[in-house]
Amino acid sequence: MTSEPILILTTGGTIDKQYFDALSEYQVGESTVGMLLRIGRVAHPFRIEEVLRKDSLELTDDDRALIAARAAAAPESRIVITHGTDTMTDTAGALAAIPGKTMVLTGALAPARFTESDAAFNLGLAFAAAQTCAPGVYIAMSGQVFDGLRVKKDREAGRFVQIE
Amino acid sequence: MTSEPILILTTGGTIDKQYFDALSEYQVGESTVGMLLRIGRVAHPFRIEEVLRKDSLELTDDDRALIAARAAAAPESRIVITHGTDTMTDTAGALAAIPGKTMVLTGALAPARFTESDAAFNLGLAFAAAQTCAPGVYIAMSGQVFDGLRVKKDREAGRFVQIE
Amino acid sequence: MTSEPILILTTGGTIDKQYFDALSEYQVGESTVGMLLRIGRVAHPFRIEEVLRKDSLELTDDDRALIAARAAAAPESRIVITHGTDTMTDTAGALAAIPGKTMVLTGALAPARFTESDAAFNLGLAFAAAQTCAPGVYIAMSGQVFDGLRVKKDREAGRFVQIE
Amino acid sequence: MTSEPILILTTGGTIDKQYFDALSEYQVGESTVGMLLRIGRVAHPFRIEEVLRKDSLELTDDDRALIAARAAAAPESRIVITHGTDTMTDTAGALAAIPGKTMVLTGALAPARFTESDAAFNLGLAFAAAQTCAPGVYIAMSGQVFDGLRVKKDREAGRFVQIE
Repeated sequence: MTSEPILILTTGGTIDKQYFDALSEYQVGESTVGMLLRIGRVAHPFRIEEVLRKDSLELTDDDRALIAARAAAAPESRIVITHGTDTMTDTAGALAAIPGKTMVLTGALAPARFTESDAAFNLGLAFAAAQTCAPGVYIAMSGQVFDGLRVKKDREAGRFVQIE
Repeated sequence: MTSEPILILTTGGTIDKQYFDALSEYQVGESTVGMLLRIGRVAHPFRIEEVLRKDSLELTDDDRALIAARAAAAPESRIVITHGTDTMTDTAGALAAIPGKTMVLTGALAPARFTESDAAFNLGLAFAAAQTCAPGVYIAMSGQVFDGLRVKKDREAGRFVQIE
Repeated sequence: MTSEPILILTTGGTIDKQYFDALSEYQVGESTVGMLLRIGRVAHPFRIEEVLRKDSLELTDDDRALIAARAAAAPESRIVITHGTDTMTDTAGALAAIPGKTMVLTGALAPARFTESDAAFNLGLAFAAAQTCAPGVYIAMSGQVFDGLRVKKDREAGRFVQIE
Repeated sequence: MTSEPILILTTGGTIDKQYFDALSEYQVGESTVGMLLRIGRVAHPFRIEEVLRKDSLELTDDDRALIAARAAAAPESRIVITHGTDTMTDTAGALAAIPGKTMVLTGALAPARFTESDAAFNLGLAFAAAQTCAPGVYIAMSGQVFDGLRVKKDREAGRFVQIE
């Protein structure tokens, strides 16, 4: 088993949504990843790097290029990327050409600050996949580690499903 | 990536500790695994089977033989076992002889019913390891997937560490 | 001390905000009051009646007239009203003419479904005020029971303050 | 309505129970009151004073005398006392002779660190009673503000009930 350090790149998405009373609205806030790893009592070495704070529907091609550039340039070869779920598969495509790195996208359908959020479970799922999978792009959602290039979000059903 | 169903065997431990007011004490209660998988929005096929409801310090050799028998007899070849942390490595030893199955032990240092518990993260970690690892015994704790036969709990530090 | 039953009228507001992944947005959902009273282990007799499911900024004069009519017509003389915080004082004004009833408005600055929400504390505050105060209109927020006609929300500071 | 400051005396009990992994047991830990008031976004002036950290079944007559002495000596005339539930009524008796102060005992049937705890609701209930009630001793539990000298715990039912 590997004990190589894991890099977590945060880009925003529902997982980091906060409620701002002064605006009466929810927006992507500071990343919850540090809090989740502390509560998860993670002793495995890791490093967190904020790339963006966006809803995934607002991500541009330039944003995806930036995420890919950060992943490619990082000294770590095992990377978890927290991301909004709606365009997670597009970003998976943008990462596919990076060689020699295990990259796992994850996020949440309910904000991490909710009592009942899938954020902690999903981050655990992604953390293990980053340690155990061969180089490539993966999506860890809905309790499953998917090939990142053969999966889609079924928005109606609120889950990710494999594409045959 | 596999979409084979996962069996979760529950045996008790801190993860399932409840507070019973009528007794003014904590005891292992009904398993929290179903709740955690629901909150984690797990769509991957799984089945939960309760084996025991014990603190791991109370587990006997017969108990470990029972857990191993259940794992060996199950139709599933990918198994997560929730377990108290104090003797988790002993049970890993008792499972080592079972061939052709990926078995991942996990648990928690704080009860799943706590606001700040490592239970959800750890179960996610174990769930991914069960899908991605080769047959063998693993321990998923402290943010790391360990070889189940080369790890120990450092009780003072509150974490699992690899044995060289 | 009174053991008269308490009526809870729910009208919406931040306290009941949910996140709907399919829409990528937050909206007022089903009331959280029943859940909060269950978690609060409330044995005191109560009845919950849904009046509206609105952000308080969207409430019209007709809406306030409806809330007042429901409060006036109810058999209970002790009433808690969950409400958005931005126009809570306007509704207090609309209730002021109802004689012989103790009416307490409360709500939350963070949705009740958040791990860190003021909803449970505020509802407890309102529940006691409804039992202990003389007939009149009150606002229970920011840890204080205010005269409902002499209080305003300081939106910047995220708290309610008394008006001299 | 009063804006006089509230003193919170903490004495231990289930509300403050923590789980200590190194001991595999629950014990009364540091008080959770400060956390609960922060989450409750309390802007009303208050002061917290730790008196004891005990299960209420372990409280001696000397302990009750100490709690009463602290309440009597405090500059505040509005006091909330967090306390274990099993002997809460005994302490209410020990406070009865203190003149001119509104004293409200509260606690929880489930530890405040649990996701589903009555602690926040109960503390809100007690906080309002301390502001709105005449001098005397009260118990705020089970969603009700009781006369502290005419109430008992029904341990089987998990609730407080009035004594006729």
